[in-house]
Amino acid sequence: MITPPVRIVLVGTTHPGNIGATARAMKTMALDDLALVEPRHFPHADATARASGADDILSNAKVSASLDDALAGCQLVMGASARLRSLRWPVLDPRAAAERAVEQTATGRVALVFGREKTGLSNDELERCHYLVNIHTNPDYGSLNVAMAVQVLAYEVRVAVSGATAPLPPSEDVPPATHDEMRYFYEHLERVMLDTGFLNPANPRHLMRRLKRLFNRARPDQNEVNILRGLLTSVDEKIG
Amino acid sequence: MITPPVRIVLVGTTHPGNIGATARAMKTMALDDLALVEPRHFPHADATARASGADDILSNAKVSASLDDALAGCQLVMGASARLRSLRWPVLDPRAAAERAVEQTATGRVALVFGREKTGLSNDELERCHYLVNIHTNPDYGSLNVAMAVQVLAYEVRVAVSGATAPLPPSEDVPPATHDEMRYFYEHLERVMLDTGFLNPANPRHLMRRLKRLFNRARPDQNEVNILRGLLTSVDEKIG
Repeated sequence: MITPPVRIVLVGTTHPGNIGATARAMKTMALDDLALVEPRHFPHADATARASGADDILSNAKVSASLDDALAGCQLVMGASARLRSLRWPVLDPRAAAERAVEQTATGRVALVFGREKTGLSNDELERCHYLVNIHTNPDYGSLNVAMAVQVLAYEVRVAVSGATAPLPPSEDVPPATHDEMRYFYEHLERVMLDTGFLNPANPRHLMRRLKRLFNRARPDQNEVNILRGLLTSVDEKIG
Repeated sequence: MITPPVRIVLVGTTHPGNIGATARAMKTMALDDLALVEPRHFPHADATARASGADDILSNAKVSASLDDALAGCQLVMGASARLRSLRWPVLDPRAAAERAVEQTATGRVALVFGREKTGLSNDELERCHYLVNIHTNPDYGSLNVAMAVQVLAYEVRVAVSGATAPLPPSEDVPPATHDEMRYFYEHLERVMLDTGFLNPANPRHLMRRLKRLFNRARPDQNEVNILRGLLTSVDEKIG
C-alpha cells in the first residue's frame, strides 16, 4: 500500500468528533500522518468514536502548540481556504493541489492545513502556505465540514497517487457472442415474432432493425445469447 | 446557481446523523434532491444537528418504503459499491460516474444510490443500477462513512457541472426509459417467461438478474421499451 508523505494538519479544531472523522477519512485514502495544533479537546471519546477503527491515526497524531511545530520538515504547505482573500495568493482547486502535492512528495513531505470550524485559518497562518486550496462550494451555502474537506482532498491525493487509473472493469471471462451467433439469434427472434403475429410479414424490416440496434448496443456474451435463445425456444414450444 | 437534477438516495440508513451529514454535503455542492428508503430513525434530532443549516434538504426529503419508489422518474441509476461483486457489472470511478451523470442530466434525472452503513446495497438493489460506482479506498481499510461517500460523489458532480460549459445536447431525440418503465418491462418479461415454462418458479432470480444486466447495458429508450412490451403482449395473446 502506497502511503504518500502527506501530512494533514488540523488547526484549533473545536469538536473532537471532527478529529475522529478526519482520521477515518485519512485512513480510507491511505494517509497516516496527522498533526493537531491546539485542539480544544484531545484525546476525547467523540474523536475515538468517529474514528471508527482508525485509532492508530489518532494515537500517532502529533499534538503541538504552534503551526510552525506542526509543519516542521514539510517542503510544501497548502492551506484550505473557503473564502477569497484580499491578499492575492496562488489558489489551486483540489485536483490541481493534489497533483502538485503528489509531485512534491517525490522529494519531501507535504502539509495540507485545515483551519477552525467557524473561522478557518488566520492570515498569519495562511502566510505559511505556498498555496491556498479552495474547494468550490455552493455560493449560497459554503458550510463544508472540516472532515469532509479533508475527505475531498485526501480522495484527490489518492486519485493523483494512483495516476487517476479507473478501477479495471471486471474481466470478461465469457467472450462476446460472435457475429453468426447473433445472426442466428436474430433469425430466431424474427421467426418467433412472425409466429406470434407481432411482426407484419409484409414489412418486418423496421422493427427488426430497431431490435438489432438495441441488442447490438448491449453486446451480449455467449451465455447471454444462449439464455435469449432458450427463451425463444420456450415460446416456440408453448405456441406449438 | 446550477442545481443539476441528481437525486441522492440513501437506503436503510441506521444512524440519523449520517442523513444530516449527507444533507449538508449535498447542499455544499448545490444538490437538493434527497430520497430516503426505510431510514431507521427520521426525522431525528441528530439528523438536524449534523445538517448544520441544510434543513431545507431534510424537510424536502422524500421518505419511501421501497427503492423502486425512490427511483421513480430517474433515467440513470448508479449504485455506490465498496466491494467487487461476483456478478459482472459495469463499474465506474467517481470521476467517470459524475461525468456520465452530468451528461445524462441534459435529458433526465439521475439517481446516486448509497446503501446501509454496515452492509451497503443488496444484490437485489444493485440490479436496479445501470452502473456501480466504486470509490477506490485503502485495501486495508475501506471503512468510508456513507456521508463522506456522498460528499466525494457530490464534489465530483459539481466539478463535472462546472466543467461542462454548456449543457450537452441530448444524444437521442427519444429519451431513455425511466426506472419505472424498465421495472414494468421486467415484471412483464418475468410473467411471460414463467408462462412459457422457461423460468423455474422456484428460482427465477438468477436468470432474471442476467437478463436485467443485459438490458440495462443496452439502456433502451422509451420507443424500444414499447416495442419490447408489444412483443411480450403478442406472446401473451398467442399462448392465451
